[in-house]
Amino acid sequence: MSLKDIQLQVDQWIKEFGVRYFNELTNMAQLTEEVGEVARIIARRYGEQSEKESDKNKDLGEELADVIFVVACLANQTGIDLEKAFQKKLDATTQRDNNRHINNKKLK
Amino acid sequence: MSLKDIQLQVDQWIKEFGVRYFNELTNMAQLTEEVGEVARIIARRYGEQSEKESDKNKDLGEELADVIFVVACLANQTGIDLEKAFQKKLDATTQRDNNRHINNKKLK
Amino acid sequence: MSLKDIQLQVDQWIKEFGVRYFNELTNMAQLTEEVGEVARIIARRYGEQSEKESDKNKDLGEELADVIFVVACLANQTGIDLEKAFQKKLDATTQRDNNRHINNKKLK
Amino acid sequence: MSLKDIQLQVDQWIKEFGVRYFNELTNMAQLTEEVGEVARIIARRYGEQSEKESDKNKDLGEELADVIFVVACLANQTGIDLEKAFQKKLDATTQRDNNRHINNKKLK
Repeated sequence: MSLKDIQLQVDQWIKEFGVRYFNELTNMAQLTEEVGEVARIIARRYGEQSEKESDKNKDLGEELADVIFVVACLANQTGIDLEKAFQKKLDATTQRDNNRHINNKKLK
Repeated sequence: MSLKDIQLQVDQWIKEFGVRYFNELTNMAQLTEEVGEVARIIARRYGEQSEKESDKNKDLGEELADVIFVVACLANQTGIDLEKAFQKKLDATTQRDNNRHINNKKLK
Repeated sequence: MSLKDIQLQVDQWIKEFGVRYFNELTNMAQLTEEVGEVARIIARRYGEQSEKESDKNKDLGEELADVIFVVACLANQTGIDLEKAFQKKLDATTQRDNNRHINNKKLK
Repeated sequence: MSLKDIQLQVDQWIKEFGVRYFNELTNMAQLTEEVGEVARIIARRYGEQSEKESDKNKDLGEELADVIFVVACLANQTGIDLEKAFQKKLDATTQRDNNRHINNKKLK
């Protein structure tokens, strides 16, 4: 499933079940909501917050998938090709940061 | 470029240039940072905040790509197959919400 | 209840009931989680997302109070006087932005 | 400076310099942006991300103050008394969590 396929599948899903895209600001609030749900799991399984029984069956993969879904919505409604953007970003980060982390003592 | 490829490319990038993955909590803070940069653009181009000259060349695609990069880092370091998670989520959302939005008057 | 009182009350609460502060990264994840819960309500009551019955009794004031609680935890554990920081920020923003918004056509 | 004073000062600032409040969705994006800027500092000073020279003079107190400013905007425009909400929340959390953290081995 390529990022192109994901953008297509999300577009089809919105047309078939979503009526239309929420406006961009609503989708931005949805992205914040979904990232908050990732944070809820991370704070408990990798941080120091305790995990209640009701939280133990939450699925981090599901919450990360929700983030990707909303990112694809924002990309679709603002005309962004995520695959192109991702490759461009990876190339730029490689150029900018190729020796940034080697000097980071915190990673030793 | 499939989600699998993305997880692989991110893994290779981290091994080649990143020394190692940041711990999960640091990557959670990075995800929050990158989503904040998406929000900065959305508030100005789709919201009511004014856009300073220095903001005008910011690239929403680049910031969305940054979100995907950190999501892939979190998935890699927590053993999640994003492709599987995304498909599972799409199926579950279809089952749960297939007529949720049709009754949403706000979308008329 | 001043911001100083809030920082004091939070400190007392942590000592009496919290055992100790979570580390800063865990509290950063908690802040992201709480802001996600604010976003959940905003997306439904001021955005285009539909509001399920289970969401209708969520209290925006309670979620904003949670954000303030975690902000106070971060300030306490990093030695920040929020009252001073807030006043300094208000003065700086007044100097920097005193005519920024007047020219913002989106606010007419 | 009480939370009431803060809500008043923010209201005066908006009327004097801000023309009017941004709509709630724009302010939600602004809150996400400001929390992202807190995360940027936390990831570098308390997490494993390296801190570039350009980041070293960023002031965590200023970013936390920005979060409080936007929380006050959202409270003002949605009719919430933050002081009441905070006290109510502190009482509820005390009742709900008064022995939650004592059993949290991660805090030993």
